[in-house]
Amino acid sequence: MRFEVFILGNSSATPIYERHPTSQVVNYNEQLFLIDCGEGTQMQLSRYGIKSNRIGHVFISHLHGDHYLGLIGLLSSMHLVGRKSDLHLYGPAPLEEILELHFKHSETQIRYKIIFHPTNALQEEVIYESRMLQVTSFPLVHRIPCTGFRFQEGKRNATLIPERLEALNIPKPYFSAIKRGIDYVDAEGNLIPAAELTYPAPASRAYAYCSDTVRSPIYLKAIEGVDLLYHESTFLHEMLDRAKETFHTTCLEAAEIAREVQAKKLLLGHYSARYKILSPLLEEAQAIFPDTALSVEGKWFLV
Amino acid sequence: MRFEVFILGNSSATPIYERHPTSQVVNYNEQLFLIDCGEGTQMQLSRYGIKSNRIGHVFISHLHGDHYLGLIGLLSSMHLVGRKSDLHLYGPAPLEEILELHFKHSETQIRYKIIFHPTNALQEEVIYESRMLQVTSFPLVHRIPCTGFRFQEGKRNATLIPERLEALNIPKPYFSAIKRGIDYVDAEGNLIPAAELTYPAPASRAYAYCSDTVRSPIYLKAIEGVDLLYHESTFLHEMLDRAKETFHTTCLEAAEIAREVQAKKLLLGHYSARYKILSPLLEEAQAIFPDTALSVEGKWFLV
Repeated sequence: MRFEVFILGNSSATPIYERHPTSQVVNYNEQLFLIDCGEGTQMQLSRYGIKSNRIGHVFISHLHGDHYLGLIGLLSSMHLVGRKSDLHLYGPAPLEEILELHFKHSETQIRYKIIFHPTNALQEEVIYESRMLQVTSFPLVHRIPCTGFRFQEGKRNATLIPERLEALNIPKPYFSAIKRGIDYVDAEGNLIPAAELTYPAPASRAYAYCSDTVRSPIYLKAIEGVDLLYHESTFLHEMLDRAKETFHTTCLEAAEIAREVQAKKLLLGHYSARYKILSPLLEEAQAIFPDTALSVEGKWFLV
Repeated sequence: MRFEVFILGNSSATPIYERHPTSQVVNYNEQLFLIDCGEGTQMQLSRYGIKSNRIGHVFISHLHGDHYLGLIGLLSSMHLVGRKSDLHLYGPAPLEEILELHFKHSETQIRYKIIFHPTNALQEEVIYESRMLQVTSFPLVHRIPCTGFRFQEGKRNATLIPERLEALNIPKPYFSAIKRGIDYVDAEGNLIPAAELTYPAPASRAYAYCSDTVRSPIYLKAIEGVDLLYHESTFLHEMLDRAKETFHTTCLEAAEIAREVQAKKLLLGHYSARYKILSPLLEEAQAIFPDTALSVEGKWFLV
């Protein structure tokens, strides 16, 4: 079951060096979720051949321009290319007012349905749930209300052991239940535990997205033990004062956070315009947390 | 005196094939004016090395997203790179409300002054005037209120004839007045007409911008006799019905308009996403008005 993150933009507020403002696509089992939507996101989607109409859910962390100014254009283009299916939009409450004002003055009647879900920047909340995936929003600490998002996979299916099923003559219609851990009872009433018929299910995976935030203990629990942690790392640690002042994080801090929450892998991003070359950012983080990568535009990262 | 137009974006509503939504820079004697500001304009400026802080005046034709959704990002970035000088912004009245709503929720205090001038989509108005340049807005005919803009150069200086000035011993401090057509009176009270001391001044130049509009006689007077006419040409003429329905113009119509108003040169643009290859659009217009060019991103066009 595919679970990957695609980077559309990795820049902080001032886009430069052909880096674009923040936006990511999460692909979970061919369902696409968009996280943040900086200016130019629709062009980036088109550049990388990702059809916008495959996106069913859009999550906006906060209302700084570099995280949402591409949204109106994207919603309008979805309309222009004939989208019919509903779009679920999650973000700070005033986002709805901003969209309405634009659509009023541009006299646009969006033909598909936009279902708006205001997020809560004060406490953790489950905002999306399907059989295999749950998305929670959780408070980050920024200059304005801001949330992170955790994509948590549900319990995965175990893999059947064909020889055992065959030996016991278990009929095919039961296979799906056994994979999900339901024990089998044969015609004579004998119970055969599912665990004896399967290899253990692979562990559930999780992805957490933290942008923008100053380092704070309040969100650590929400990102605990994730397989992939995207954490903003706007500055090198020599700029710690500036990071605090602007409610951002340094690469060293991001690495310490990843270690603290026992993330498996760390992804840096939201690079300040002052850094043309990004390797010093990577090196600073890797010294603390070796399994760190730079988020790179146009690249998929496995969760 | 430089008078040129730079194309940052030439696409209609759905950006595709690496074409960007509408935006242009007018350079008049090293003063930069921005016309329309589609999504991604700040990235295009940065790509082509045009410093946004050299732009003193921004003109927005109407409130469809592909003509203004890059504005908030551009204004924010100007602020972030430390702009101090005033910015004059001209556009439909509700634009002010849209900007205020964003700055309120992003809690942004722009450090430089934005002076907003609402445009009038019902009648022609002079909206900017300096010694050598006048900008007028004039009504176009679109689905929502929309104006075009005419950049009209003032009377240009004549070129002095050095031999004549020398022969008559005319002192240097008078040269500038003579260039501007003011006759010279010598110590004995003899009047020497400026025309005898100069070669005739080159003709004043004009640039007109028309996007978006359906073909209509109402704006013809406003664009009469311009040296360079940018006229939207969203469709080929075989799509005339669609053009009318969406309040746009075909290439054939744009060419007929250029001929009718005796423009010197026509620039096509605002290409529909249905056209990957643009040569048929150019050919259709050139059959009527030979001095037609395609607006091409990243290119300067002389007025």
